[in-house]
Amino acid sequence: MNGAESLLATMTGAGVETCFANPGTSEMHFLAAVDRAPGLRCALTLFEGVAAGAADGYFRMADKPAATLLHLGPGLANGMANIHNARRAGSGMVNVVGDHASAHLQYDAPLTSDLMGMARAISHWTHRSQTSADVARDAAAAIARAGARKAEIATLVLPGDVAWGPSSGPAPLVRAQDDSRIDAHALESAARALLGGEPTLVILGGRALRAGPLDIAGRIGAKTGCVVAAQFFSARIERGVGRVAVSRIPYAVDPAIAFLKPFRHLVMIETGEPVAFFSYPDKPSLLKADGARSHQVCPAGGDGLAALEALCDLVQARAARAQVQPRAQRGGARGPLTPQSVADVLRDGLPENCILVDESLTTGRETYALTGGAAPHDTLQNMGGSIGFSPPASTGAAMACPDRKVVCMVGDGSAMYTIQALWTQAREGLDVTTIIFANRRYQILNNESVNMGAGALGPKSLELTSIDRPELDFVALAKGMGVPGVRVEDAEGFADALARALAAPGPKLIEVRL
Amino acid sequence: MNGAESLLATMTGAGVETCFANPGTSEMHFLAAVDRAPGLRCALTLFEGVAAGAADGYFRMADKPAATLLHLGPGLANGMANIHNARRAGSGMVNVVGDHASAHLQYDAPLTSDLMGMARAISHWTHRSQTSADVARDAAAAIARAGARKAEIATLVLPGDVAWGPSSGPAPLVRAQDDSRIDAHALESAARALLGGEPTLVILGGRALRAGPLDIAGRIGAKTGCVVAAQFFSARIERGVGRVAVSRIPYAVDPAIAFLKPFRHLVMIETGEPVAFFSYPDKPSLLKADGARSHQVCPAGGDGLAALEALCDLVQARAARAQVQPRAQRGGARGPLTPQSVADVLRDGLPENCILVDESLTTGRETYALTGGAAPHDTLQNMGGSIGFSPPASTGAAMACPDRKVVCMVGDGSAMYTIQALWTQAREGLDVTTIIFANRRYQILNNESVNMGAGALGPKSLELTSIDRPELDFVALAKGMGVPGVRVEDAEGFADALARALAAPGPKLIEVRL
Repeated sequence: MNGAESLLATMTGAGVETCFANPGTSEMHFLAAVDRAPGLRCALTLFEGVAAGAADGYFRMADKPAATLLHLGPGLANGMANIHNARRAGSGMVNVVGDHASAHLQYDAPLTSDLMGMARAISHWTHRSQTSADVARDAAAAIARAGARKAEIATLVLPGDVAWGPSSGPAPLVRAQDDSRIDAHALESAARALLGGEPTLVILGGRALRAGPLDIAGRIGAKTGCVVAAQFFSARIERGVGRVAVSRIPYAVDPAIAFLKPFRHLVMIETGEPVAFFSYPDKPSLLKADGARSHQVCPAGGDGLAALEALCDLVQARAARAQVQPRAQRGGARGPLTPQSVADVLRDGLPENCILVDESLTTGRETYALTGGAAPHDTLQNMGGSIGFSPPASTGAAMACPDRKVVCMVGDGSAMYTIQALWTQAREGLDVTTIIFANRRYQILNNESVNMGAGALGPKSLELTSIDRPELDFVALAKGMGVPGVRVEDAEGFADALARALAAPGPKLIEVRL
Repeated sequence: MNGAESLLATMTGAGVETCFANPGTSEMHFLAAVDRAPGLRCALTLFEGVAAGAADGYFRMADKPAATLLHLGPGLANGMANIHNARRAGSGMVNVVGDHASAHLQYDAPLTSDLMGMARAISHWTHRSQTSADVARDAAAAIARAGARKAEIATLVLPGDVAWGPSSGPAPLVRAQDDSRIDAHALESAARALLGGEPTLVILGGRALRAGPLDIAGRIGAKTGCVVAAQFFSARIERGVGRVAVSRIPYAVDPAIAFLKPFRHLVMIETGEPVAFFSYPDKPSLLKADGARSHQVCPAGGDGLAALEALCDLVQARAARAQVQPRAQRGGARGPLTPQSVADVLRDGLPENCILVDESLTTGRETYALTGGAAPHDTLQNMGGSIGFSPPASTGAAMACPDRKVVCMVGDGSAMYTIQALWTQAREGLDVTTIIFANRRYQILNNESVNMGAGALGPKSLELTSIDRPELDFVALAKGMGVPGVRVEDAEGFADALARALAAPGPKLIEVRL
């Protein structure tokens, strides 16, 4: 057994069964070992940003890490933007980055770069394996970090000589210490706030937004009158009919401040205080009302379910009945494509138990609140702000849940960052329907120019926020990667296309021309 | 004048007139300032890898840096692979990376990352501007580094408050100290070697591969009998009919060793000793013959022209006559697409004074030697080994040389990394003809598996080197981004398509189905 084989055996032994791969010459022994690793499913991607984003989507749905296989420093660099998004989402992943044999580094060959510097800039845990005898143990350590409750980005650099040298076999699984990270003092003060009658907002993040913890939060709300909310972006929310609905703290600074203004207490579970996404001249970064008190019960990566259970007991809300999302009135999706008609189509058309990966920045901001009455589903959002998240994350979510439909909502500008994901969806036969909201501009920038105090943009500047010349033809792009697509121009057409796309297995694309 | 305006005025004042941009909210004041910077041409890209690769191609043809405009850490990360390629090519560029205002960083907003760590891992020079009063001076320092003879990657981080705060105006140009970096001792020993009669190889890199220095090298060759060569990859070679042809040191280790075996002396000018691209079990990294002596006359970034002139005088070769590439016999491009017939088409079809950007890994390795007899042209190659170089670099080369035709040769696997470049070519009306060599696999990996001693790949492994399922349709992909394309399946079709593509202005794509 060589080092690469011991690495793969360690991975599959620890339950890491999926690898999103962009291999190169330096990963040749890993590649050859794949054929001798029966428990491993490898999906080829055409660009590392797809591999990294897929690992994020996979983790969110599987609750365990996937691996990526990347080619030296530049391969890791191509994955970094979506690794950043995963990191901010609390998704763990094991990045295996091939490198030159150690003896080759001194010659400064073309692909040599500051690989360790790059890896440290994006990873919680970075290690370069020194010998083929060590690599299995190193892999076990990486998997422990990536698979912990506070899941981390673990990057293992695999030099050629470590991959091809001899190994005595796989290493056993290392179990991470999963501290609940609950702050007992904050828990007590939160309970007092909830019982004290002052307006209180309970903000949930991470795994506290699954149906079970949400039900508990709903009971606390029913008993104490607190409002339950999520940040504007969340890693995964189980929502829809029959689930406890949560308010969403607005994205823009002024509405967010207005939303938060009434609350004298903020209780945070698996998330932190609401902060502005960007910095603006003359606007605050911290959005809570002056004098509002924060109760950080547990941080991201803590045990939010246990925190909510303890809180529920302290406020004696076990017997309360949570208010759940009623079934919405259906129909009404007619005429021009507007935020309302788009939302009508989605509310009626999202199939039960689907996974909605939402990166429709401008469109989604308006439609989200209008789709709460859809059938029960999971929504995944971009947590790191680096666009090009949704097509890869949808790919990974579909790999994790082959029996669920995935609906990917993405703006045209964002989609073009990682459009190569469509090809992997076609190759793996994944049930992903991609909806491109094509407004032919980076509309969010036009909105932000006023918020920034930069004034109205002139013609040369506007050229840098517009993508209408030439117009992107997403149906042609999808065809180029083996995915059937249609373009729709009104609500009826959108509803019909969505129904057809979801009726048959395999990837589809709908270009919604706004 | 605000900080962003002072930055742009400093750039245009110093001759940095082109910016490849992927802006976001944090770059809003830079964006607004573009309208008040009449000397600046901004080209929007759909992905930062295109912006960075375009800056590389621009530098190689313009001999001066372009700027990139990138959005925080993840935007820089998306550009890093092609920044790596540029760095290895000795191309300078000024990366302006927008960031949160400094006061906002403490809140760890979603797009916060280790931006400085990322920047340092890829840049020669990294600086975060502290105040709006400083940024013009900081920009001048960045431009000096990027525009020096030993050109560097200069990354300037522009926090929001620095962009929107007040400035007293632009800063004057700083001139870099351009040392010739010629080693007088190595120059003398090289001259003695050349006159001594032992087999000597003169290896040229960087600007020493332009027509002028090549003519001098050709005289030295005619006088002394030395062989003049280039590394397998070079940043820019002026070649074709009437120019001094250089041998190319092979890519694969065994042929490279065989090529170098006869030479007792290596004279290196603007490049170093030939080393293996990758490390392989039981193969050396350093390729020269045992006992061969190296004469490093000047390193990359040195004054190769001055070095060659001095060497020419020392060996008294001024009056010698360099042997130049004769006109090749034309015609013969018929039948199936083979390395020979592809090369025949290119040799006959490349227009005089065109720029050939060559990243056709498997195909190009065989065709290059067969196209020396084409009309005079410049060839640019990928110096860093991170694929996805050629479509962006072609975009930048066309921006630098609007009166020259650009021919981009790229394999299907490489093209998919940065296929978004086609859209910028269409938007800017650039004269780029992209030739996709579609063999539907990462053929180079299949070749390398044997070299690596990893054995023949099994079926699961082969899936990771093959991109034939589904087949990529590059004509559809091009249509999706506004570029007309055709598919060809034989040499006559290829020749016809190339002639048609080059006859009319604007971008085109030819999918050569191998």
